[in-house]
Amino acid sequence: MEIGIIGLGKMGLNLAENMANQEYKVFGMDTDLTLKEEVNVKNIEFVETIEKLMSKFTKRKIIWMMLPAGEITESVFQKVKRQLQPGDYIIDGGNAHFEDSKRRGKECEKENLHFFDVGTSGGVSGALNGACMMVGGDENAFSQIENIFKSVNVKDGYLYAGPSGSGHYLKMVHNGVEYGMMQSIGEGFNILEHAEYDYDMAKVAKVWNNGSVIRSWLMELAFDFFSEDANLDDIEGVIHSSGEGQWTVQEALKLQIPVPVIAQSLMTRYSSMDKDKYGEKVVSSLRYAFGGHTIKRKED
Amino acid sequence: MEIGIIGLGKMGLNLAENMANQEYKVFGMDTDLTLKEEVNVKNIEFVETIEKLMSKFTKRKIIWMMLPAGEITESVFQKVKRQLQPGDYIIDGGNAHFEDSKRRGKECEKENLHFFDVGTSGGVSGALNGACMMVGGDENAFSQIENIFKSVNVKDGYLYAGPSGSGHYLKMVHNGVEYGMMQSIGEGFNILEHAEYDYDMAKVAKVWNNGSVIRSWLMELAFDFFSEDANLDDIEGVIHSSGEGQWTVQEALKLQIPVPVIAQSLMTRYSSMDKDKYGEKVVSSLRYAFGGHTIKRKED
Repeated sequence: MEIGIIGLGKMGLNLAENMANQEYKVFGMDTDLTLKEEVNVKNIEFVETIEKLMSKFTKRKIIWMMLPAGEITESVFQKVKRQLQPGDYIIDGGNAHFEDSKRRGKECEKENLHFFDVGTSGGVSGALNGACMMVGGDENAFSQIENIFKSVNVKDGYLYAGPSGSGHYLKMVHNGVEYGMMQSIGEGFNILEHAEYDYDMAKVAKVWNNGSVIRSWLMELAFDFFSEDANLDDIEGVIHSSGEGQWTVQEALKLQIPVPVIAQSLMTRYSSMDKDKYGEKVVSSLRYAFGGHTIKRKED
Repeated sequence: MEIGIIGLGKMGLNLAENMANQEYKVFGMDTDLTLKEEVNVKNIEFVETIEKLMSKFTKRKIIWMMLPAGEITESVFQKVKRQLQPGDYIIDGGNAHFEDSKRRGKECEKENLHFFDVGTSGGVSGALNGACMMVGGDENAFSQIENIFKSVNVKDGYLYAGPSGSGHYLKMVHNGVEYGMMQSIGEGFNILEHAEYDYDMAKVAKVWNNGSVIRSWLMELAFDFFSEDANLDDIEGVIHSSGEGQWTVQEALKLQIPVPVIAQSLMTRYSSMDKDKYGEKVVSSLRYAFGGHTIKRKED
């Protein structure tokens, strides 16, 4: 089978290498020409335009996009769609919003193209060595390319989830759950850090990974980074978010489903980004205004 | 080595069996005489009083309590303490509050007894097949009995955590983290249950366990129960709590450490127990009072 990967960032490049290792003929497309040598070494044939990518195929085209969600995904999707023939495949392995994926699925259906929205988990190492994928799209068309999913994921590491959008929806909720689990782990270690006992965090993470109820891949990652930097001295306490936690909470609001922990995890991330602390300034001013409580003013 | 286990409930009995399987000479004490036959079959010598338990030992006594936290642990601890000789060991493998364990450690130190507070995780199957234990107490005395911990836990599944109280403290925080992780998982599946897609929850849990970022023992348990009862029709949405989540939040309040997610997980459990919903009645009445919003009255 021939597969074209568009977007050779950390995830895309590793996934392309993973596929090349599985004996697929892989074409890798990126506008960053400096990648060319690195990519070709990995048995991935580098091309720098979508047009050239299309010309490489000798049979049915399978195009796999690994791009940031939003404008870039949309513009590449439209370009690719125009250059495909009925029966060809277009797969979005990025983190698009499921409503966009639903719409893209419909657009493709009109042109007899097979669109799949694929939520990809497992991080950068997973993309290379075996990932986890949640797939939305037409079930019959899926069966034609299921072998790809079988070969690039860990055992039992893919799920045909349902019609268009259901793959990215499932990945969105997965990330929401991830936010909550991570925040809970963060809070627990924060208590330990301030406790009257002097815990060795790496040893704690290690024992929590062996036989305990909270053993998990996230705790294994915690063990790894505590082993390298016991006090996290080199880390800033600022948590970025790439959108899926936000979408999860937005979806919960749409459905009017309570998600206090996932929402709070997201708010904690926003707080961590908030250098100005305007809301806290207002609260502090209110306390001062009615109670004469001390207010801390910036020094000039 | 000879070990006496006091309290042959689900955890205590399984742990006793685990120890008996490791070639320890195990005496099991419980006031429930109906356990006698079941216990003796497992190579555990059943005794029905603390006095008889003491008389069984031919060498240094190691007493391991597996009792509910609170009064029963305290009264048994005091009785046992009075009957031990300097150099003997007393281990609390239950879920006592760490402040109680600190105090018990001090009481034992005065009498030259070795006290250990041991937080035990891994559930009932872990107690039998390999658990996870967090141990507080004197480090030198610990080294004398470390082999027990090596043999009843999974590989790397025990940690000498520090002085008296540090074992139960660590287990307390572990359970707080567990609350948050569980709540996050619950919220995620709740969104999926109300989503526009028709997800097979067992299949979702399965794929999330294979290669994804949120793979974890809790997700494996979710796969197990969704496989048996896909819609959870037989389950009531009421979440009990045994105290350690509460203690975690109390400790965070004492330290003034923010734990929004762990606290919210605890509050969700309280809400789930609250049949009367008095607080919600007040809010509903307030809405009615100022805005004329509909209020739902009980039918007579």
